[in-house]
Amino acid sequence: MARRPLDILNESLGTSIIVRLRGGREFRGELQGYDVHMNLVIDDAEELHDNEVIKKLGTIVVRGDNVVFISP
Amino acid sequence: MARRPLDILNESLGTSIIVRLRGGREFRGELQGYDVHMNLVIDDAEELHDNEVIKKLGTIVVRGDNVVFISP
Amino acid sequence: MARRPLDILNESLGTSIIVRLRGGREFRGELQGYDVHMNLVIDDAEELHDNEVIKKLGTIVVRGDNVVFISP
Amino acid sequence: MARRPLDILNESLGTSIIVRLRGGREFRGELQGYDVHMNLVIDDAEELHDNEVIKKLGTIVVRGDNVVFISP
Amino acid sequence: MARRPLDILNESLGTSIIVRLRGGREFRGELQGYDVHMNLVIDDAEELHDNEVIKKLGTIVVRGDNVVFISP
Amino acid sequence: MARRPLDILNESLGTSIIVRLRGGREFRGELQGYDVHMNLVIDDAEELHDNEVIKKLGTIVVRGDNVVFISP
Amino acid sequence: MARRPLDILNESLGTSIIVRLRGGREFRGELQGYDVHMNLVIDDAEELHDNEVIKKLGTIVVRGDNVVFISP
Repeated sequence: MARRPLDILNESLGTSIIVRLRGGREFRGELQGYDVHMNLVIDDAEELHDNEVIKKLGTIVVRGDNVVFISP
Repeated sequence: MARRPLDILNESLGTSIIVRLRGGREFRGELQGYDVHMNLVIDDAEELHDNEVIKKLGTIVVRGDNVVFISP
Repeated sequence: MARRPLDILNESLGTSIIVRLRGGREFRGELQGYDVHMNLVIDDAEELHDNEVIKKLGTIVVRGDNVVFISP
Repeated sequence: MARRPLDILNESLGTSIIVRLRGGREFRGELQGYDVHMNLVIDDAEELHDNEVIKKLGTIVVRGDNVVFISP
Repeated sequence: MARRPLDILNESLGTSIIVRLRGGREFRGELQGYDVHMNLVIDDAEELHDNEVIKKLGTIVVRGDNVVFISP
Repeated sequence: MARRPLDILNESLGTSIIVRLRGGREFRGELQGYDVHMNLVIDDAEELHDNEVIKKLGTIVVRGDNVVFISP
Repeated sequence: MARRPLDILNESLGTSIIVRLRGGREFRGELQGYDVHMNLVIDDAEELHDNEVIKKLGTIVVRGDNVVFISP
């Protein structure tokens, strides 16, 4: 019944996610891809601060070792 | 008799846990999955500050290298 | 005659230990398990500050890369 | 349909990218190469601060473990 | 003629050493064991601050990645 | 047509480079060697602060994990 | 013609070197040994601050991941 972390990422492909990075920065967008390091491809990415959009970034590749958590 | 760290995580699947991250942040929720890096899947996750719920996050995938300890 | 670090952890199973983490935080409790990464299972864990108990945590899994030292 | 992080880098070869590093520093230039560690070769690189060019750097090799995200 | 780092640790078994950790903390005691990660077992360990003993710790296991240097 | 990061280092052997390290420190000198970790050998190395030479260092071996970028 | 970082360390055995560590600390002494992690054995080591000797340390084993650069 248990679902592993990468299962969750796989199920979230094509859907909207929020990613919190070290230092508190957050990004929101559509998960388009990932790899085993939790490197992520996010489409229509927006950078958030206190839940406000502060920057629109288009597609970004986030390096996994900055990730604190991913919220599908 | 000794139980290894991942045994404890395995026994905790489906039960409520608290996770403390570097920087003091805490999350509470139901452990739904994990892997050998201590990446965690937490359902109904709540972010805590001084034991107060400050944010409800739904399901989150926490990257293991942020984890200080997990309290089943 | 030399005893390796993991030998000491093995001999300490079932006995009380103190663990100091990066940032100065300390935990005290009974060592119930460990692995090669020095991930630890501690029973009846108490969080200490200046040798005072500030929180009782029950069983915790501590991620090894936060550990500065373990005092059996 | 999913595209992995390195696919995106491969598709971005020869095009302009922005790279944000830990600490907030940003570089803009043409992606000329990369490897599996996300080490990057950037041509005509410019260092940015608040979207202003503060330094022109020519070709640079960025070490991947400083990268927060890459925006193609 | 060259002696490798682990040779020095091996020769120091059973003798008094000083270990400086990241953040400046120092420990003094008898080296009882080590492994390839420079994890150390120190007997009769004392924590030092400005060369003053501030705490007696008995036997400790120091995790190698906190070590700056070891002085046999 | 893409050139990988280590290709650039190889092409830069014997030429002048600037290396920026974490924390902002910069070194300038002639690249004499490197390895896959981006450890570097720099001849006639000068330490720079705000583009001013603050110290002449002769040959230095820079450990790769401090490198932010290398500018050939 | 290129000389790799470990070649330089090998050529420096038995000669005086300066090592700068993260945080700015410097050590001077005779390089007696090293390994592939750039762990170093330094004889007659002196700790320097602003080029002044602040402490004589005898032989020390420096853990490589603290090293910023080595100046033979």
